[in-house]
Amino acid sequence: MVIKMSYEIEKAKAQQACDILKEQDIDAWLVWVRETSQMADPVLDLIFGGDLTWQSALIFTEDEKIAIVGNFDEAGVKAKGIYDTVIPYTAGIREELVKQLSRKDPKRIAINYSVDDVAADGLSVGMHMLLQEYLKNTPFATRFMSAENHIQKLRGRKTAEEVSRIRRAIEITEEIYEKVRKFVKVGLSEMEIYNFFHKCMKEYEVSSAWDVDHCPAVDAGPYKQFGHAGPIDNETKQGHLLHFDFGVKHKAYCSDIQRMLFFGDEKDIPAEVQDAFETVRDGIQAAADWIRPGAVGYEVDNIARDFVKAAGYEEYQHALGHQLGRLAHDGGTLLGPKWERYGDSPMGVVEVGNVFTLEFYVTTEHYGQVSLEEDILITRQGCEFLSKPQKDLICIK
Amino acid sequence: MVIKMSYEIEKAKAQQACDILKEQDIDAWLVWVRETSQMADPVLDLIFGGDLTWQSALIFTEDEKIAIVGNFDEAGVKAKGIYDTVIPYTAGIREELVKQLSRKDPKRIAINYSVDDVAADGLSVGMHMLLQEYLKNTPFATRFMSAENHIQKLRGRKTAEEVSRIRRAIEITEEIYEKVRKFVKVGLSEMEIYNFFHKCMKEYEVSSAWDVDHCPAVDAGPYKQFGHAGPIDNETKQGHLLHFDFGVKHKAYCSDIQRMLFFGDEKDIPAEVQDAFETVRDGIQAAADWIRPGAVGYEVDNIARDFVKAAGYEEYQHALGHQLGRLAHDGGTLLGPKWERYGDSPMGVVEVGNVFTLEFYVTTEHYGQVSLEEDILITRQGCEFLSKPQKDLICIK
Repeated sequence: MVIKMSYEIEKAKAQQACDILKEQDIDAWLVWVRETSQMADPVLDLIFGGDLTWQSALIFTEDEKIAIVGNFDEAGVKAKGIYDTVIPYTAGIREELVKQLSRKDPKRIAINYSVDDVAADGLSVGMHMLLQEYLKNTPFATRFMSAENHIQKLRGRKTAEEVSRIRRAIEITEEIYEKVRKFVKVGLSEMEIYNFFHKCMKEYEVSSAWDVDHCPAVDAGPYKQFGHAGPIDNETKQGHLLHFDFGVKHKAYCSDIQRMLFFGDEKDIPAEVQDAFETVRDGIQAAADWIRPGAVGYEVDNIARDFVKAAGYEEYQHALGHQLGRLAHDGGTLLGPKWERYGDSPMGVVEVGNVFTLEFYVTTEHYGQVSLEEDILITRQGCEFLSKPQKDLICIK
Repeated sequence: MVIKMSYEIEKAKAQQACDILKEQDIDAWLVWVRETSQMADPVLDLIFGGDLTWQSALIFTEDEKIAIVGNFDEAGVKAKGIYDTVIPYTAGIREELVKQLSRKDPKRIAINYSVDDVAADGLSVGMHMLLQEYLKNTPFATRFMSAENHIQKLRGRKTAEEVSRIRRAIEITEEIYEKVRKFVKVGLSEMEIYNFFHKCMKEYEVSSAWDVDHCPAVDAGPYKQFGHAGPIDNETKQGHLLHFDFGVKHKAYCSDIQRMLFFGDEKDIPAEVQDAFETVRDGIQAAADWIRPGAVGYEVDNIARDFVKAAGYEEYQHALGHQLGRLAHDGGTLLGPKWERYGDSPMGVVEVGNVFTLEFYVTTEHYGQVSLEEDILITRQGCEFLSKPQKDLICIK
């Protein structure tokens, strides 16, 4: 069963990794890892699918994919059928590493470090020291560069199969949201609602798209700040809002959607709540209308941020959107402000095939925060909504 | 449910982290991470339990545990009750990081990098660059050292609760082995047996201690090299051996045990198989009799390796034993030979409270490999077997 897994996505991504090299003026991409069951380079899932035990080198050049792995891993790596050349070793990897690099003689070798993007920063300090040690007295020691751009293109440009898996994750999320809508009522605790979500997730055989402690986030009433705190005993009340931030992982790909509910009739929605809701909904739509291939991350964030400020609200304290894929936060270009903690990621360019979230909150005076989140796919013309955008507050009567 | 998790183990380990500092002549231990749902420093589970989103600093000094975290993580971190001081930030962590370091003014600051031990090598190259950048023009930039020894002591010295969880994981493993013994018969494929293990694991609500592809490893007959290849369609046959390498993770702690079965009567066991089995069994016992606090890793490996060679077999191509804990390969001192790929880890010293595996194989001429693995706890006097050592080949009639 497990051994017969297909590695079609990994094969396609590994080939994409070779194809993108030329574009980035890179001669070889080196993924340099060990004991990945304990700490895995985030790119490994993308172009390998599984774990490597001893020190291992995956080398991608324009015309060849090479894996140098411990002898116990050889059979498993060959069976995947992703790599053209699989070379086992027993006592130490150094000799084969130098030999294979010498054979390809790459002038520019990209390795996985990045100050700004965790998804491109899979190389540990110790493994980097080891690489320098193994390659000292060879010409390769001075040929390294960051693979950040390369990995961002690779992760960001979803293949058709990747998009199809994300669509399914989103579909499941929306189906669960519909079940939750029928389930919720006044007087339930956040914890009871959280547990219902998890019951549904079990039925669909999906896992949390992020830390299970706060997936879904369930925020009832005016006093709870949205964010990364989990559900508590706080109860839903008539006339109050209820907020969810929820995503599932299905066949390794994620969704990430926020929804807002109101306990009462449409006619009872307070004006300030309605105004806040429309501001968030329309701010997201404004960003979606504007986004297109070639747009720079911070420019897209600015559209929504300016919209919010123009509407008289305080600006949201996070980025407008992040990429979505194998990870809920999939790295690469961020639709965010140029703040210190976001580094260069808001300077990245939006590309066809990217999947982004669009999300933000505003704060009302008496009813707490109002927040929504949609998922979009970048197309040649602009974008397509993958989630069905929430148009009105969902009223629970 | 989830939010009410108890963090007693993490609290005890965090306190232990403070207590060990003095012994190592370290003034502060800095765990410096971000977006840990995507790539987590392996120590984080030990002293935090959960994920951190933005750049975060966990600082341990002799008298204080400080967490500087993104504002959305603040409530969750406070709720754990592990950290004395929890400081949130919004735009950037730099200011608070410098402020807190200045307040404690540590002269020697340990950070998580290690050439030889993946479990102590959780700092990424990009995060290291960022740390250097944030601390340039402060005295702290030049005060860093490796936390390798610190982390190895911390991981290696199991608390009573940790040992108790490992015992339970081992107990479950042995119960499943007993069910498997009753299930196996001639003519089953490795895959069918693998699936039965997983059925049992589901009943016990445990997960694989390592990559599910080869946990358990199921190796039937003389032609399959033991190692990291998964089960295949290969079938069990009368007069053949069957080998398992299996471990479970229960409440975050692992077991790791190998067992050998023979299809036939005791009297039909071929002499060369019996001799191989006794060599492995007695080699493990010899190492267990010899091991004690203060022993050096490679010395213990030598005991078994010499035993095997004296018995006329080729030596095993791996280490005699690794530590066991939250990870099946828990890092720290390795009971292994001084080979390049093991780096310094066989030079480490065995300590009270360490949990090790003892495992090796020998190769017979006609029946393939014979391999066993037991789990032991280091005591003041020597060691205690946590698994019930296999004394005889398990005969399936």
